[in-house]
Amino acid sequence: MQFETVIHDGTVVTPSETFKADIGINGGVIAAVAERIAGGERRIDAGGRLVMPGGIEGHCHIAQESSSGVMAADDYYSGSVSAAFGGNSTFIPFAAQHRGQSIADVIATYDGRAAPNSVLDYSYHLIISDPSPAVLEELPGVFARGITSFKVFMTYDLMNIGDAGMLDILTIAKTHGALTMVHAENNEMVKWMNRRFAAAGLTEPKYHALSRPELAEEEAIHRAVSLAKLVDAALFIVHVSTRGGAEIVRREKLAGTKLFAETCPQYLALTRDDLDRPGMEGAKYICSPPLRDHATQEGLWQHIRAGTFESVSSDHAPYRADATGKFMNGADAPYPKIANGMPGIAMRLPYLFSEGVAKGRITLGDFVRLSSTNAARVFGLDRKGAIVPGFDADIAIWNPDEKRTVTLEAQHDNMDYSPFEGMEITGWPELVMNHGRTVVEKGELKAGRGDGRFIARKPVDTGAMPGHRAVEFEVAARYGKEIAP
Amino acid sequence: MQFETVIHDGTVVTPSETFKADIGINGGVIAAVAERIAGGERRIDAGGRLVMPGGIEGHCHIAQESSSGVMAADDYYSGSVSAAFGGNSTFIPFAAQHRGQSIADVIATYDGRAAPNSVLDYSYHLIISDPSPAVLEELPGVFARGITSFKVFMTYDLMNIGDAGMLDILTIAKTHGALTMVHAENNEMVKWMNRRFAAAGLTEPKYHALSRPELAEEEAIHRAVSLAKLVDAALFIVHVSTRGGAEIVRREKLAGTKLFAETCPQYLALTRDDLDRPGMEGAKYICSPPLRDHATQEGLWQHIRAGTFESVSSDHAPYRADATGKFMNGADAPYPKIANGMPGIAMRLPYLFSEGVAKGRITLGDFVRLSSTNAARVFGLDRKGAIVPGFDADIAIWNPDEKRTVTLEAQHDNMDYSPFEGMEITGWPELVMNHGRTVVEKGELKAGRGDGRFIARKPVDTGAMPGHRAVEFEVAARYGKEIAP
Amino acid sequence: MQFETVIHDGTVVTPSETFKADIGINGGVIAAVAERIAGGERRIDAGGRLVMPGGIEGHCHIAQESSSGVMAADDYYSGSVSAAFGGNSTFIPFAAQHRGQSIADVIATYDGRAAPNSVLDYSYHLIISDPSPAVLEELPGVFARGITSFKVFMTYDLMNIGDAGMLDILTIAKTHGALTMVHAENNEMVKWMNRRFAAAGLTEPKYHALSRPELAEEEAIHRAVSLAKLVDAALFIVHVSTRGGAEIVRREKLAGTKLFAETCPQYLALTRDDLDRPGMEGAKYICSPPLRDHATQEGLWQHIRAGTFESVSSDHAPYRADATGKFMNGADAPYPKIANGMPGIAMRLPYLFSEGVAKGRITLGDFVRLSSTNAARVFGLDRKGAIVPGFDADIAIWNPDEKRTVTLEAQHDNMDYSPFEGMEITGWPELVMNHGRTVVEKGELKAGRGDGRFIARKPVDTGAMPGHRAVEFEVAARYGKEIAP
Amino acid sequence: MQFETVIHDGTVVTPSETFKADIGINGGVIAAVAERIAGGERRIDAGGRLVMPGGIEGHCHIAQESSSGVMAADDYYSGSVSAAFGGNSTFIPFAAQHRGQSIADVIATYDGRAAPNSVLDYSYHLIISDPSPAVLEELPGVFARGITSFKVFMTYDLMNIGDAGMLDILTIAKTHGALTMVHAENNEMVKWMNRRFAAAGLTEPKYHALSRPELAEEEAIHRAVSLAKLVDAALFIVHVSTRGGAEIVRREKLAGTKLFAETCPQYLALTRDDLDRPGMEGAKYICSPPLRDHATQEGLWQHIRAGTFESVSSDHAPYRADATGKFMNGADAPYPKIANGMPGIAMRLPYLFSEGVAKGRITLGDFVRLSSTNAARVFGLDRKGAIVPGFDADIAIWNPDEKRTVTLEAQHDNMDYSPFEGMEITGWPELVMNHGRTVVEKGELKAGRGDGRFIARKPVDTGAMPGHRAVEFEVAARYGKEIAP
Repeated sequence: MQFETVIHDGTVVTPSETFKADIGINGGVIAAVAERIAGGERRIDAGGRLVMPGGIEGHCHIAQESSSGVMAADDYYSGSVSAAFGGNSTFIPFAAQHRGQSIADVIATYDGRAAPNSVLDYSYHLIISDPSPAVLEELPGVFARGITSFKVFMTYDLMNIGDAGMLDILTIAKTHGALTMVHAENNEMVKWMNRRFAAAGLTEPKYHALSRPELAEEEAIHRAVSLAKLVDAALFIVHVSTRGGAEIVRREKLAGTKLFAETCPQYLALTRDDLDRPGMEGAKYICSPPLRDHATQEGLWQHIRAGTFESVSSDHAPYRADATGKFMNGADAPYPKIANGMPGIAMRLPYLFSEGVAKGRITLGDFVRLSSTNAARVFGLDRKGAIVPGFDADIAIWNPDEKRTVTLEAQHDNMDYSPFEGMEITGWPELVMNHGRTVVEKGELKAGRGDGRFIARKPVDTGAMPGHRAVEFEVAARYGKEIAP
Repeated sequence: MQFETVIHDGTVVTPSETFKADIGINGGVIAAVAERIAGGERRIDAGGRLVMPGGIEGHCHIAQESSSGVMAADDYYSGSVSAAFGGNSTFIPFAAQHRGQSIADVIATYDGRAAPNSVLDYSYHLIISDPSPAVLEELPGVFARGITSFKVFMTYDLMNIGDAGMLDILTIAKTHGALTMVHAENNEMVKWMNRRFAAAGLTEPKYHALSRPELAEEEAIHRAVSLAKLVDAALFIVHVSTRGGAEIVRREKLAGTKLFAETCPQYLALTRDDLDRPGMEGAKYICSPPLRDHATQEGLWQHIRAGTFESVSSDHAPYRADATGKFMNGADAPYPKIANGMPGIAMRLPYLFSEGVAKGRITLGDFVRLSSTNAARVFGLDRKGAIVPGFDADIAIWNPDEKRTVTLEAQHDNMDYSPFEGMEITGWPELVMNHGRTVVEKGELKAGRGDGRFIARKPVDTGAMPGHRAVEFEVAARYGKEIAP
Repeated sequence: MQFETVIHDGTVVTPSETFKADIGINGGVIAAVAERIAGGERRIDAGGRLVMPGGIEGHCHIAQESSSGVMAADDYYSGSVSAAFGGNSTFIPFAAQHRGQSIADVIATYDGRAAPNSVLDYSYHLIISDPSPAVLEELPGVFARGITSFKVFMTYDLMNIGDAGMLDILTIAKTHGALTMVHAENNEMVKWMNRRFAAAGLTEPKYHALSRPELAEEEAIHRAVSLAKLVDAALFIVHVSTRGGAEIVRREKLAGTKLFAETCPQYLALTRDDLDRPGMEGAKYICSPPLRDHATQEGLWQHIRAGTFESVSSDHAPYRADATGKFMNGADAPYPKIANGMPGIAMRLPYLFSEGVAKGRITLGDFVRLSSTNAARVFGLDRKGAIVPGFDADIAIWNPDEKRTVTLEAQHDNMDYSPFEGMEITGWPELVMNHGRTVVEKGELKAGRGDGRFIARKPVDTGAMPGHRAVEFEVAARYGKEIAP
Repeated sequence: MQFETVIHDGTVVTPSETFKADIGINGGVIAAVAERIAGGERRIDAGGRLVMPGGIEGHCHIAQESSSGVMAADDYYSGSVSAAFGGNSTFIPFAAQHRGQSIADVIATYDGRAAPNSVLDYSYHLIISDPSPAVLEELPGVFARGITSFKVFMTYDLMNIGDAGMLDILTIAKTHGALTMVHAENNEMVKWMNRRFAAAGLTEPKYHALSRPELAEEEAIHRAVSLAKLVDAALFIVHVSTRGGAEIVRREKLAGTKLFAETCPQYLALTRDDLDRPGMEGAKYICSPPLRDHATQEGLWQHIRAGTFESVSSDHAPYRADATGKFMNGADAPYPKIANGMPGIAMRLPYLFSEGVAKGRITLGDFVRLSSTNAARVFGLDRKGAIVPGFDADIAIWNPDEKRTVTLEAQHDNMDYSPFEGMEITGWPELVMNHGRTVVEKGELKAGRGDGRFIARKPVDTGAMPGHRAVEFEVAARYGKEIAP
């Protein structure tokens, strides 16, 4: 058998095994995994290297306006390039609806942004900010197109859809096998805190963290889970930043709730102390939910290890520390008017590898699971996230021993800072492949603008989670009556 | 020493002891508790009887319009008479604000209703449905008047004040030492369910129970507690009807949260099966939160015993099963348009005694604690709830062995049904005294209309509950800045 | 009415109320509690003072040989005097069986030690170290005598009766309404640790703490509770020193297990750091279970407040820091050969008042409950622990504002050190009365050797704890067969 | 590339993926997994079939005397044949030490039993019943031989090694990277219950279940975990049969304890009602821990799904229902003298597939994880449990749609009954391969006696479980002293 590409002599890692094998690739797809494969039009020597499924970045903001109208610094070109340098083969940014906008228009807009530009395969999570009847009617068409996940917000005035809106979305998602993702922070708590801080004249960036306390997230996670249980719909809690939130997730998983969750490297790497940097430096560390403390970091690692989280995602939100980004409302804007978010699409995996695997907090198998395999499964990328025949040749080759200090210069995004700058990282990707194409190799970009493909995704698979008896079920069981789900 | 009244030869019960003693009363106040007291202008023989602090009914709707405009069937006369026949010496109905109404007007209105009519001492909990700036400014005057508790709603469109409204109320309550009570059900969940049921044509009374599932209460309790913790304010969860809700209360008490809670006899005595009675019979059992199931009943008893609840209250909500009450919107109104609530002010204590004490589920001391002492402490009735010198002679003398079947005829309220009708009850009050006045004796009313007094209450005492670091504390500790509580 | 003694103008405290009242006493018994009582052969002015039930010390080692043969430094005279100076009116030391000794002999021995010497009322808990058939047969006679509680050990080779022995004791206790108390530490764990430490030559006193880790207590508490549940017998866990242990107690109480527990001041006041004092100083702080750390102290206070513990007891174990006590095996004996225990009978209540009430960690009512009332209820002292007519006039009058520094000279025990020395204490007892006799007043002893009485106690009252279905119940329910309980 | 064997057109299942692929095998080892592999000396058509790692049976009693001297009915021939028919490629029976026996002798004995007879690859877990110093000295040699797991008992007089014995074993296991497995039931509880039942004349088989209550297992699991945490050693809880036990495991995993656990099909399939069958029929269902109830079954499925258990094992204990087995003490022996255990090595996987996968309780990936992959990882079979190049060609080909009713005749063990008889099972293995050899195919045995190999296993890998600070660590951190682990 002949192969276009052969990866030779590497150590392949799956969620459950680590073994030496060669990989043969044809037509962008893994054709064989074998002890020894001869030949190959292209032959890549992976001796002494780890060969892992390319990362799948499931949470990033690319070419997306924030709710307050600031455009992310990264478009689909810089975003995908940066992701690739960070060990990712595929990413799923958001396609965000503005209130009043039709979904067809949202999709068309993002297709226009992504298709000509992305160097990696991509899909979208559809952000719904306005679940009007017209919008709800459009959704089945979106699923048919292979966009099988939404995101909704419980915070931000322009995004928050309210509990009833969530029930509507969860219900339609359930009916069509889609997954609802949620940013869980209590909007009224946060706004009330903002008013108090403003009244006291405390508007510097550092006050951001205390203004969005752990309670705001824990409350909203509990509420979101309650809403999902009411209708027995699948739910994915994004960027969990609290031990209390993680505890709820873990408890509900045992109870059979159809629940998934992620955390992000910034909640493991940074704390609210970082917001205390002088002047507007602290603004670089403004994200929501905000950074917490060291005890939280340890707690989140515990839950990562114990399987509470499916994945660790970046929540890459590239707003520059200048007037185009963080400070679109002026260089000394009060913290609620500073753009939320920080970059990280390139550092998610090196950070997770270095602090996780190299420091013994997680296994290699955990790394693969958290960085790629679970995201593929949860988000319906049925041909990605594993090194097995028939799957896309989305592969990252890592040097587990390489040590480098993070510098801003080494980044490939359009940002003017990195919250990871100065950290010593052990373990870096050397070669990243997407659908058989080498995208990055030895620090150089090898793929072209627009080479990435849109990937239609499958319906959400809740595995064997039994879920809960939704009300339509109770009504039928008790009274023999039918109500719409 | 001479006494106007002596209660002789009874067995006195306190939360921690049961002992034989005589009681001497002068000027409406307990003057002595002694092994033997001779004389007495009036001498009451309590041989073979239990002498306990008169019940304090902390949750009842008297002469109050419901949010939908239906007036309770019981005014302060029938309400207090019924309470007295049920073993109560004091009650604290609600004074309810309509939206737009000034608090001064609310108080004046209820003073007009209560003072000329009540046969028992009384106070009010102030229901706030509209926490406007003007209303918030009025509140300190209300505290000064000795009305030191509010109630707010998380459900009912005309009452629900939202999370921010709750934070405002909790904060002002904290500042003035008042206690915030909350009806915790998620309003949007309930309304969304109602729409689904309506769309399916399921509008009979029996659907009420499933339309307000356990999740709606558990979610709202968790949220209410989160809001209270955010500002470190005292909170009282009324009518807890779920095990999940009770669990939250118990967990938070260990954590030091300033939290109190109650449940009601209907959640121990009845289930959602009672709503399935034919025709509009089921409407009699409509209350919110709704009746649950047998496993819940057992769980609530467990928590009663373990100290999770401070008190068992009636939530007496006397809407007749006719056009003046339940069916103000027509005899076949859909369930969301049927008035919520059921009578129980007279049956709370006999039921609790019979099913609790007589059946060995709670001790006599528990009974006193749950029926009177704790309510006095939590609601600031600093001279009530105990049989000790200097306290009001609010005393109930019970025959623990008397067995009677509950009949509607034997009730003294203005209702046309009793959900307790037909139950066999062991243990009934024989004589009830309020401030030294005999109100009820051997089945006869002895007190006159308007004999009861308004009682100014003390600020809430959270005992030694340490509470949580509210944000103003964190801001001060971390940054040395002050923000308004 | 005439009274031999009147306590005038004091502030009386019960577990649920605090009120001004006079107390009239006749024949050693409280005859009246009244707003104002004139006269009195003796009239005690308690203005500005707290009048509380005298402390009941439920855990102390008096005139008792340790398992290794060392006699406690305090006999029933010095022990009771010291207790009285510490605010106690009654105490319940242990009557300890040596292996092979008949119970009749044990009781006779302790009667000989106590009756001629005690200045306070007393009873015994019977320590059983050898539950032979002959011993088990004697037990009903002991109950009949009014000794209704045992203590057993899960540690110490000469005391540990094993799981089967515990099941035997628990079963006979259940049958006769007695309460089983347990010292819960895993004996094999401790011995195994001792061997390791000895092998490494680490025998200084400070190693004692690490040799008996939290796990040893938590394991044994869990096991003891499991054994008690198996037979549905009442159990009292003495000197809980761990958060894990307290958690088990709290969880089981909700589940209805017939369970009681206490902690001790040393676990709130001291830590294992105290064992690190130089030379043999550390030996003074050797007790078992050992002292823990600050986080544990906070956790125990949380549980005290939340009602997890019935009482706070002293575990007074007076072994002098000399050859008659701690060092009976030589001045430089390895830690496992140093006598375990420390004095504290006089400091239990002042410490609890000062750190608890004065610092706002507990309420006055909690203090009464933890120091006296609950011990009376749990241990069957049906005429003690409350200031109500008919109860023994066991009363302590406290000055809540008095501040004193603890000195060894001020102690009245036979000890040569106090672990509380040097602490600043706010709140001290000024007058202590037992059965109407003034025992201590203004720092002077007023009672005589042997004035105290033996008190026959009632069977254990498990209140309304439902317990668990013991096996005899299951066998009957399932197969209709009877087995002996 | 040429292959000796090619499995063609099957659907390969891993713990995380399901995909179509061909498998090429050379020299007993998987050489390639590819989309399409031509040729093959032998070509197996797996179209429409699932191709999964062959089962690894980690808990079975083969050619082993019970503690009471009864020899298992299955030797290494019948045992391995039966296992193979049940979808297993490898098994790890026990090599059991009799008290006084040297370990060298134990290993030699079992080598003699296994090597000439087994049709499957095998290893042993070493049962230690007598941890004497001499035995402890032998253990390093056993590890060197590749026997890296022990089993110890907390029950059975002739096996129970006591808490100190467990600490010794756990410590030496930790030092050498071995895994300690434990049968956790409280021996004294069980014996005490047996005495009570015997005294009441209740000796029929059905009383076995009640005599070993849930509490006996839960207590022992809690204790075993406490012992393991004390020394920070890895522990594997075998045959968990209770929800309480599973809860402990789940809680400790989050806490980072180095803990593994399994349950067995009989606890999912049967209940204590099965013991109630008439006459000595019930004896067939005697196993320890005993069968429980339906609520337990549901709870165990919940935990299986949630990842609490690494594996589901058979605990195959083949004692015939005749005088050679169950009734070695007579046909009407009292239940404690009836041999414990039931057969199931052949039914473990079909049952798990049918009730788990076919009924939607678990996923296909879960099945692979629970039946093979995790056992390989936990027990150090580093070349087994996965279908990847370089791993042993241990493969089972299943027909997921085949339905058959279980009959005794269809079994291949030496037993005279099957507890699974009569059950309808969907999904059966059709071909089982071990190290490239076809062992079973279409219902026929293809392998020869003694074809299986002994497999040396690797040290236990606790992944990234952080464990706990053992005492040697605390001593070093606090005092800078070393003690032996």
